[in-house]
Parts: sequence; C-alpha cells; structure tokens
Amino acid sequence: MRLVCECFVNAFCNLKKPVKNIKVSIIGSGNVATNIAAALFAEGVEIAQVYSRNYDNALLLAKQVNARAIQQISSLENTGDLYILAVTDNVLQDIIEQFPAVNGLVVHTSGSVSMSVLKKFKRYGVLYPLQTFSKKRKAAFLNIPLLIEASSASEESFLKDVAGHLSSKVYSADSERRLNVHLAAVFACNFANHMYVVAEKILADSGINFDFMHPLILETASKATAMSPRDAQTGPAFRGENAILEKHLSLLENFDTLKDIYIKISNHILLEKEQ
Amino acid sequence: MRLVCECFVNAFCNLKKPVKNIKVSIIGSGNVATNIAAALFAEGVEIAQVYSRNYDNALLLAKQVNARAIQQISSLENTGDLYILAVTDNVLQDIIEQFPAVNGLVVHTSGSVSMSVLKKFKRYGVLYPLQTFSKKRKAAFLNIPLLIEASSASEESFLKDVAGHLSSKVYSADSERRLNVHLAAVFACNFANHMYVVAEKILADSGINFDFMHPLILETASKATAMSPRDAQTGPAFRGENAILEKHLSLLENFDTLKDIYIKISNHILLEKEQ
Repeated sequence: MRLVCECFVNAFCNLKKPVKNIKVSIIGSGNVATNIAAALFAEGVEIAQVYSRNYDNALLLAKQVNARAIQQISSLENTGDLYILAVTDNVLQDIIEQFPAVNGLVVHTSGSVSMSVLKKFKRYGVLYPLQTFSKKRKAAFLNIPLLIEASSASEESFLKDVAGHLSSKVYSADSERRLNVHLAAVFACNFANHMYVVAEKILADSGINFDFMHPLILETASKATAMSPRDAQTGPAFRGENAILEKHLSLLENFDTLKDIYIKISNHILLEKEQ
Repeated sequence: MRLVCECFVNAFCNLKKPVKNIKVSIIGSGNVATNIAAALFAEGVEIAQVYSRNYDNALLLAKQVNARAIQQISSLENTGDLYILAVTDNVLQDIIEQFPAVNGLVVHTSGSVSMSVLKKFKRYGVLYPLQTFSKKRKAAFLNIPLLIEASSASEESFLKDVAGHLSSKVYSADSERRLNVHLAAVFACNFANHMYVVAEKILADSGINFDFMHPLILETASKATAMSPRDAQTGPAFRGENAILEKHLSLLENFDTLKDIYIKISNHILLEKEQ
C-alpha cells in the first residue's frame, strides 16, 4: 500500500516541473528585481535572461545570477517558465506593450497594480513581496509574506510552488486586497521611514548623529510586533500634553510643512485613542 | 609609585558614596518610573520610597523593587541621595510645588521640560532616557542613551556615575538640546508607531492580521540603522508614482484626516528627496 502511495505521489509530481528545474527571466534591475533574482538563484533556480532599460544595470544583475543580459526586450526567448516584471509601476505599462508573446507565466511584483494589466498574456499573475528592498542589502526571504494571484487555478498552484521555495509565508490575495495591503505598507514602511528621515534632520540641526536614535527606533518597531501598536503608543500627543506640543511647534516654526505634519499626526493620535 | 597611585585613587573614591550604596526614591509609577526603578534595583541600588498619586500603583511598583509606598508626598524622608520625578509633564509642576525640602539630588526625567523648573531645590538635575517604555516590557538599559544635566559640576558628576551604572551611553545635554532630541524622538518613535497604528487599522478593514506587517516593520527599522534613513527611503511617493498615490487616496476617501496625512507626508518625502 505504501509503495502504491509513493508511486502515486511520484507520478503526480512528475506531471509538474520541479521548481528547481524551471527557467526564469527577470525584467528590471532595481531593488525588487535584484533581490528576487538573487533569492531564486540562491535556491538553485536558473535565471536565463535579464532585461533592463539600463543595460549596464542589466549586465550587473545578470553577472550576479549567472544570467545573460539583453539589450532589447524583443530578445526575450520564448523558452522561459516564468517572466518576472519587477519594474516601477510608472514603466510597467510600457514594458507590457513591448513584451513579446511568450508561453510562460508572466507576473508583475507590484502591490498596487491590478493583475488585469497583464491580460494580453496567455498565462499571468502577480507575485508581490511585502518587504522593503535595497540592492545593497540582501533580504532574508524566508519570513517575507508573498502575496500571489494568478489567471487560473493551475497558474496559481505553480506560482505558489515557486513562492513557497522562497518564503514560508505565501498567501493568495486578489488585486483589491493587495492594494489595501500595499497602502498599509506605505504607512508602516515608507512613512515610518520618513519619520526617521525627519528625526535625522532635526538631530543634524543640533549637531547630533542619528546613531543616537537607533535603540529607540529598534525598540519602537520591536514593541509593535510584541503587542498591538495601539497599546504601544506613547508620547506627548497621546497623553494630551499640549504644553509640550507648543514647545515642539515653536522649534518647527521655520518648517511649515513639518509643522503641519506634526499637528495632523498629533491630532490623529488623539482621535484614534478616543475610538 | 604604583602603591601611591592606588592609595590616591582609593582615597578619592572614598570621598564619594559608591552608587550601589545610595538611596533613591521614585516619584511616579508609570512606564518611565517603573522601568528606571526596576533597572536601578537590578543594579543593587536601594529604592527607599515610592510615591504616586495613585496609591495602588505605588504599592505595586514598591513591591517590585522592595521599597515602601507612601500615600502623601510630604511623607518623603529627607535621607535620600537621589529623588527621581518620573511623572508626566502635565503633573510635574504640581509635584514640585508639593515636594518637601530635601538635601538629596532631585531630578526629573522629561525630554521637554527645562531643568530650571527644579530650581527651588538645593541640588537638581535631569536624567532623560531616550527610549519608549511600557510597564509590561522590561527595557534593556545598557544601550539606552541617557541625557543628563545638573545644577553644578559635582551634581553632574554624581548623576553621570548613577547613569553610568544603567547605561554605557551617558551624555551631557542642556535643556535646549534635550528638547531638540525629544522632538526628534517624537517623530522617530511616537509618530512612526502611529504609522503602524494606521497600517493595523487599514489591514483590519480588510480582515488581515497585523502580524502580516511584522517582517516589514522590523526590516524598515533595521535598515534605517544600517544606512541613513534618507538612503533607505522607498515607496511610490519617493518614486513620484502619482497613479498609485491616486489609488491609495481613493481607498482613504472616507478618512479625511488620514488622506490629509498621506498627502502631507508624500509631499514632504518628495521635498526632502529634492534637497
């Protein structure tokens, strides 16, 4: 009986190409492209071609993942199993228009673009990694939530397999849900980081190095993962200490936009506290 | 010669009371009071009395640090070496007015209140820990920057000794500089945390748990300590992707204040990029 089961499992598996044997091409050479390509390559996946509008960047990335850089998008071969369009949303539409007809699965990596922009392809989908990437900083994919969506159940199953090789957190999410997650990520990541930028600027004006703020930043983030950020909220706005708010605003008197941001966020902290 | 030097050092040290032999009283029973009291107690310092406007809280904290809770501030004994006023800025002035005359050093822990509010005391100063505290979360003091200020050089030296027992990062800073640091901390901690609160709210509206955002939050903070947050900045506002901004704003159409915050921060991200 056991043997039969194993045979059945093997037979079933043989119908699908193991992820390690697939061939992937990368379109883009930015932060996301570089990190996804590197992560797949580290998993033993073949990266066939790399296309970027900036050929030098394509060459650089291709070298890192043992791939071939191409100068024209029309040079993409129709032998790939997966084409990953990891480009900024601004240029995605152009790339799609120029993209040659391929039989492989074409996915984009955007949090905010609907899957339907890829509908000219036979097989398409989305692979959105919920993380902030930099070229110079290798991301540890294992814990990164990967949101996937695909044009059919079998494509979704394939994409789930690929994503599952990179991360233990793979979730199906339609375009609307993904956009909501993306908006949340803009607050939790991009805007939180901008608060650090402002802090760095304020400290620099006082001749203090930003290193000073590191333990506070790390603890604030760590605390918000150990309890709800709502319960972790502290500070003068939360305590309604208007005298401090006034002092802070006087320090910002030459920075109208910052002053405005300070007031708006402080008001919103109180608003949320009352709910 | 060596012996003479040692004798001199010993003789000099004996003039000062070793930090572990000092007697400290704590005024307050909130996040800062609880964490400072616990950290001093862990270092073997005697916590004599704890006063809080809420006697039950005073009892609770006193129990943790083997101290006596008192119901009236007038019951504070004049035998302490150090009195730490770790109360919210709103009530600090009241506490100071009611405070009995003492010979020990009286310090407050506020980032935004001038040292001069304590001038009625013989010896006074400030011990401001640059960290976010919660009662339920024991802070690791060793890496917390402690900003100190005192009414004279000898008080500053004493305070530096005490602070040096808690943290390896002790800095002298006058009230003006401390206020600047505090403002920076409000952005890097309180406002960054509020960005997490907003993200949690957006995800909740989509039925998604905030856990989902944990790797992103931790990586964003970690990245900003490995490089300047300015270099770590990513996101649609930074890339000038207006089409995404429009989509996000449409998701926020029923949340006017949030929409406003989104626009203001996005504009400021671009403004800072251009500088």
